[in-house]
Amino acid sequence: MKKIINDPDKVVQDMIKGFVAAYPNDVKQLPNTTGIVRKEAPFSNKVGLVSGGGSGHEPAHAGYVGQGLLDAAVAGEVFTSPTPDQLIEAIKAVDGGAGVFLIIKNYTGDILNFEMAAELAEAEGIEVDKVVVNDDVAVEDSSFTSGRRGIAGTVFVHKIAGAKAEQGASLQDVKQTAQKVVANVRSMGVALSSCTVPAAGKPSFELADDEMEIGIGIHGEPGIERKQIGSADDIAAELTKKILEDNKLTKNDDVAVMVNGLGSTPEMELYIVNGKVQELLAEKGINVYKTFVGEYMTSLEMAGCSVTFLKLDHELKELLDAESNAPAFRAK
Amino acid sequence: MKKIINDPDKVVQDMIKGFVAAYPNDVKQLPNTTGIVRKEAPFSNKVGLVSGGGSGHEPAHAGYVGQGLLDAAVAGEVFTSPTPDQLIEAIKAVDGGAGVFLIIKNYTGDILNFEMAAELAEAEGIEVDKVVVNDDVAVEDSSFTSGRRGIAGTVFVHKIAGAKAEQGASLQDVKQTAQKVVANVRSMGVALSSCTVPAAGKPSFELADDEMEIGIGIHGEPGIERKQIGSADDIAAELTKKILEDNKLTKNDDVAVMVNGLGSTPEMELYIVNGKVQELLAEKGINVYKTFVGEYMTSLEMAGCSVTFLKLDHELKELLDAESNAPAFRAK
Repeated sequence: MKKIINDPDKVVQDMIKGFVAAYPNDVKQLPNTTGIVRKEAPFSNKVGLVSGGGSGHEPAHAGYVGQGLLDAAVAGEVFTSPTPDQLIEAIKAVDGGAGVFLIIKNYTGDILNFEMAAELAEAEGIEVDKVVVNDDVAVEDSSFTSGRRGIAGTVFVHKIAGAKAEQGASLQDVKQTAQKVVANVRSMGVALSSCTVPAAGKPSFELADDEMEIGIGIHGEPGIERKQIGSADDIAAELTKKILEDNKLTKNDDVAVMVNGLGSTPEMELYIVNGKVQELLAEKGINVYKTFVGEYMTSLEMAGCSVTFLKLDHELKELLDAESNAPAFRAK
Repeated sequence: MKKIINDPDKVVQDMIKGFVAAYPNDVKQLPNTTGIVRKEAPFSNKVGLVSGGGSGHEPAHAGYVGQGLLDAAVAGEVFTSPTPDQLIEAIKAVDGGAGVFLIIKNYTGDILNFEMAAELAEAEGIEVDKVVVNDDVAVEDSSFTSGRRGIAGTVFVHKIAGAKAEQGASLQDVKQTAQKVVANVRSMGVALSSCTVPAAGKPSFELADDEMEIGIGIHGEPGIERKQIGSADDIAAELTKKILEDNKLTKNDDVAVMVNGLGSTPEMELYIVNGKVQELLAEKGINVYKTFVGEYMTSLEMAGCSVTFLKLDHELKELLDAESNAPAFRAK
């Protein structure tokens, strides 16, 4: 295991220390938790936004804490859900009186723990609502999930719900908009290599030297098929086809595209994939409104990428474009 | 070689196609070249900024083309200098009458080719000046370089010279400010693994399973020492110490810090390194004005990181903070 760490059992706390040290004017760590919160939170009469999940997906989730995005992100251990007692602290910290909205990726552990935290918060008189993101079209049901998994499309939910909340929308309206994003966002990924959870010390799974896995999850959950590595064009075509079959985009639809690196795939390769994806969308007369290429939702040092399409209407475009200020959301 | 590419000999052109397709409203490809230029260039009476270098360092250099940053970036083949005939096209394309400024990393091939292009441009009546970035404190002279190598600190030169040019400064003033950055920026890196140039098909060098190389260059040029992998804290301490010995930062100095990933090191690890770097600077009473953590200047899928310190005065702070708009420069 070649990693730049101190103690495999302390990677999350060391990371949080280094994260807060990087942006001390913008964020703070919630005392005795793994939660990162906007420094000025809570914001009076603004819906507070909380997300989080296992660590190892950096820049998700703390990288999306900022103005026009999340108010708090809670990190679990690597590939492990944050606990309800950590989540409730984050909920309390961002409650400015307009309620708190939770953005949850669809993994059984995350759902359980976020829901438990929501119940605890409600018992304390905080109004809480939530959305569950399940953008991965690869498989129904998976190792850690009932139904579809939540992957990189979650970043669009963060951004758009974040912009909506920043405008002063009610909890109900933030939820409605977030649900619209969930209903219109679809993703699928491919891996060329595994990754190593620091505390485990060995790769989560093995792929042969000439193999890739199509439809893999961001924790290495099985995908659709293992086969010989294809060309970038073939991979782009396969992912694009699967997503389009699912969300039924048609001519003149407007979309946002994300080509997301899983950890160790060079940006050069992500742009090569993007070239083909854009060509395929153009052939179908689908309009690309905005493109995001980079690492937005990773799996430690996994090699591979995912492709996400979000169908946009006027509201979603405006919210996607709205000003934001968080370390990891590259506006262009 | 596990890569998401089509043809190893066409990675650069495929990447450029995908890059332009991602930001069609902002950039264009110079016809028949590997140059990326701001779509509205040239800008009348603004000094035009051109950088570039071998591919494989993405997001450098095209990712820094945008308002308040570069006007053009020219990509060579992987780890190979762009040619003078490509560079001259970029120079001509960004010449708005106030001259063109070249930002060159100190590699012999880059120097030769940029200088030849400058001569060609001057022969056509375009005023050209340049700065050579040599921020790597690891070694004097190297495989491809006489003197110190230029590495991640170059991104600060792009940002600050870009902001100066955007303000309407003269060619001479842009040069003076860029030289001030070069005089005050120092970096050093460490690698845990090699990388594979697509056309070569095998790793550029080998590192044993428990080895790291301190002071490595961004093309895998030899560093100071190969030794057993240390902890993140040890690595941070060694890089910080070497840089501080060189640039003699003292108590109450203000600096910008960059912890840059070389390609496949998870952001989690970069933040862990940052935590220790910030602690060490605080112990010395050095003030961190702004921190940048992420992939800014990579070496394909090399594992490892570099640390950069830029000593700041009032002018440099203002220019570092100035608004900019390019895909890869994360403002926070």
